[in-house]
Amino acid sequence: MSVMWTVKVVGLGVVALSLSVELVGWLLHRLRPKRTRNEVLFFPSKMACINHIFAPSSPQLCFCPLPHGVETSFSRLLRCILSASSSLDLCVFSFSNMDLSRAVLTLYSRGVTIRVLTDKDYAAITGTQIGVLRKAGICVRCDVDSVYMHHKFSVVDNRLLITGSLNWTRTAVQSNMENVIVTEDPDLVRPFIKEFQKLWLHNDPARYPYSSDPKPAHKATTPRTDKP
Amino acid sequence: MSVMWTVKVVGLGVVALSLSVELVGWLLHRLRPKRTRNEVLFFPSKMACINHIFAPSSPQLCFCPLPHGVETSFSRLLRCILSASSSLDLCVFSFSNMDLSRAVLTLYSRGVTIRVLTDKDYAAITGTQIGVLRKAGICVRCDVDSVYMHHKFSVVDNRLLITGSLNWTRTAVQSNMENVIVTEDPDLVRPFIKEFQKLWLHNDPARYPYSSDPKPAHKATTPRTDKP
Repeated sequence: MSVMWTVKVVGLGVVALSLSVELVGWLLHRLRPKRTRNEVLFFPSKMACINHIFAPSSPQLCFCPLPHGVETSFSRLLRCILSASSSLDLCVFSFSNMDLSRAVLTLYSRGVTIRVLTDKDYAAITGTQIGVLRKAGICVRCDVDSVYMHHKFSVVDNRLLITGSLNWTRTAVQSNMENVIVTEDPDLVRPFIKEFQKLWLHNDPARYPYSSDPKPAHKATTPRTDKP
Repeated sequence: MSVMWTVKVVGLGVVALSLSVELVGWLLHRLRPKRTRNEVLFFPSKMACINHIFAPSSPQLCFCPLPHGVETSFSRLLRCILSASSSLDLCVFSFSNMDLSRAVLTLYSRGVTIRVLTDKDYAAITGTQIGVLRKAGICVRCDVDSVYMHHKFSVVDNRLLITGSLNWTRTAVQSNMENVIVTEDPDLVRPFIKEFQKLWLHNDPARYPYSSDPKPAHKATTPRTDKP
């Protein structure tokens, strides 16, 4: 009898131990803090060839004079943008950088849904890429209410936020001190998705059918000391 | 004998159960993802009285015509800045907002260590608060290398990062579409602390003792299409 009891106790102990190990493993897996993608890029970026980023699956020899195979802040930024597989929502004050324009056009040619929201005044300055995007068929809307639509953010696939001080210009990338945050943290991504949607709907041209220049009058009188 | 065994088994079972509960509780406590402070503020901000934020412990009656007791993006921003208890590192392109200047001066009067890094050209424009801060004794350095020192970030107590598209100007706060991220996520805060330290040391006036205007010549020739 006592031998049987001993066997039962040992058996129960083994079962309890294995269940405990299972439980601890499950808890560790479920409760371990997940690493959210968070990256900060600083500019000006070093200059390097970025041609290979546009066609990583079929790399071609490039004979441009820039260094090759060098990872820079700008190449990281380009990779983030080009990672879009379904959508890119872009909300940017000034857009004149031709490499970034090429990235947006590349995504568009791949069937990615692109929405661009920009400042009305800066959409028309010399060197802007907004006209190039429009001609390609990309949907662009201009802010009609504020003094400046001064955002510089984009959201990739409703998942990845790219935001900071960097306008999409050549000077910003190559010459200015700038920062860009790249994050998948939902606490940060969600408000930007919501804000984009709000601004996109608010600046629907159908809401302003009879105005050729719906910018408020106070924009022209903004003191120059308060440049954006 | 069998009764003794039963008692022993039940006793062991109770001990094992209580230990398991303890272990599960400990694991839950240790492994639960910690809530990192993450907040996004959008501008333009509604206008509201902010006087009570500067002296929360001794609120005084205010008869200004603005709405009172209203929480806005700007009041949230002010509270974040005024939460500094030991240091405020500020790296901003344009600084002309008098309420934000008041906040920095308030912190300085409380003994908080303030370091301000700004763009050389924008430090001298009409309406700038940089001269006011300098006169008060706050240490200000100007960027000497880049075309524009275009950052708009600050770090409170080496712990809280405030960054975005918002320059510290009246127009940015009241009239522009802008965003500000407030975060304690170390993955985001640490790179900005490091970048500030790098820029602060790099722009030490002692490194440029003989130059009255050490800005690079190319700054003046930057094409206007690439405004920051």
